[in-house]
Amino acid sequence: MSAQAPYTLVLLRHGESEWNAANLFTGWVDVALTEKGRAEAVRGGRLMAEAGVLPDVLHTSLLRRAITTAQLALDASERHWVPVRRSWRLNERHYGALQGKDKKATLEEYGEEQFMLWRRSYDTPPPPIDDADEFAQSDDPRYADLPDEARPRTECLADVMVRMLPYWYDAIVPDLRAGNTVCVAAHGNSLRALVKHLDGMSEEAVVGLNIPTGIPLVYRLGEDMRPLTTGGEYLDPDAAADAIAAVASQGR
Amino acid sequence: MSAQAPYTLVLLRHGESEWNAANLFTGWVDVALTEKGRAEAVRGGRLMAEAGVLPDVLHTSLLRRAITTAQLALDASERHWVPVRRSWRLNERHYGALQGKDKKATLEEYGEEQFMLWRRSYDTPPPPIDDADEFAQSDDPRYADLPDEARPRTECLADVMVRMLPYWYDAIVPDLRAGNTVCVAAHGNSLRALVKHLDGMSEEAVVGLNIPTGIPLVYRLGEDMRPLTTGGEYLDPDAAADAIAAVASQGR
Repeated sequence: MSAQAPYTLVLLRHGESEWNAANLFTGWVDVALTEKGRAEAVRGGRLMAEAGVLPDVLHTSLLRRAITTAQLALDASERHWVPVRRSWRLNERHYGALQGKDKKATLEEYGEEQFMLWRRSYDTPPPPIDDADEFAQSDDPRYADLPDEARPRTECLADVMVRMLPYWYDAIVPDLRAGNTVCVAAHGNSLRALVKHLDGMSEEAVVGLNIPTGIPLVYRLGEDMRPLTTGGEYLDPDAAADAIAAVASQGR
Repeated sequence: MSAQAPYTLVLLRHGESEWNAANLFTGWVDVALTEKGRAEAVRGGRLMAEAGVLPDVLHTSLLRRAITTAQLALDASERHWVPVRRSWRLNERHYGALQGKDKKATLEEYGEEQFMLWRRSYDTPPPPIDDADEFAQSDDPRYADLPDEARPRTECLADVMVRMLPYWYDAIVPDLRAGNTVCVAAHGNSLRALVKHLDGMSEEAVVGLNIPTGIPLVYRLGEDMRPLTTGGEYLDPDAAADAIAAVASQGR
């Protein structure tokens, strides 16, 4: 089956997790949504239903906060029954040795320059996590089929690009070409990587990109699988602008 | 990929739905779980985790009560990240013109003999539902790809056998042969149909078969995809026996 452009892609970043609320670095640690995060997901689903943007297929990471967000949003938009595909390639950036650490304590220990490099630079990963660390995923069965050398111990955004893009080309694009409206429910950094690719952003520009949680971001794509409108469209543009402004002012 | 017997299949019937609680015929009407039903699902997941019966892949119907049950159970057993496949062939029996009707009022209107024939006989379907009925699924997008003549307007258990078995052979068995522990989250009658097939039950015997809600039923299967132990094993056999006895005494 194939269909014609424009194709419709919906990106959905998960809402607040328990470790967002506790101000800990999360990465690949599999924490749950808070009640606030669950409410964000339901609202995202209602925005999709109101806009008539109805996913035919869902792609998620292997992490509970994205999986639950997707299920709540699809339930709220009456699309809970669509096929589901999942991949570690949509996971959040692996935060290396910082996983499980308090953000404020890390800032104090390493200073703002190093802290911001790890958080925001394109190509500086944190130190790798030790396989014996309680916040490593060494024995996690969901990664058991992944050969050891392919399993990240830390990642910068450039690393996320490298492992996310094969999934875009091999799993998501075929679903789009078949004419499906595709929902990708994932994380701040895996979605930043995808948006960088779609919008052709420079490494410098993506450093300043923030994708708000829980607000569906809709891209219409042409035959070349590039956006008809750079940056796509948030289904609640005012709320998205407010959220982006709030993050920008946090950094000051 | 292929693997060796025994293969492991886990059947999970959804917990209480809003219409179970309201005593209405449900069938293909897509109602939500009650809080009690959600708790049953979580408990089912904990039973799987305690028994070390950990699904590698999930199959569900297209109905919310099975989908939510599965997601809650897999979340409780730390298997929320497994691949998911869904099919209308695992849906509950279509209850025809009875969908949306009060069970007590139906019993009074049609008498016990007719009522029990529709509820329990192997091959007597209720009258077909009118496509214009508010409880028909005529415009439901989840069945839009199904040619009109393949979409049920009513079903008896024999009809459910006919439409469920192709999914068993073509979708579930290949996942088992690949070595996966397979969870099928579905409904009273689609699971009765599957159990009838697995255990080689007669049409008379299946009429008396009741599968309790929320208690995982585990089958170990040989190379012939038949149970090593007829009837399988409930993960909480005492609770299952109590639930089966309670249903049996209801009928008196």
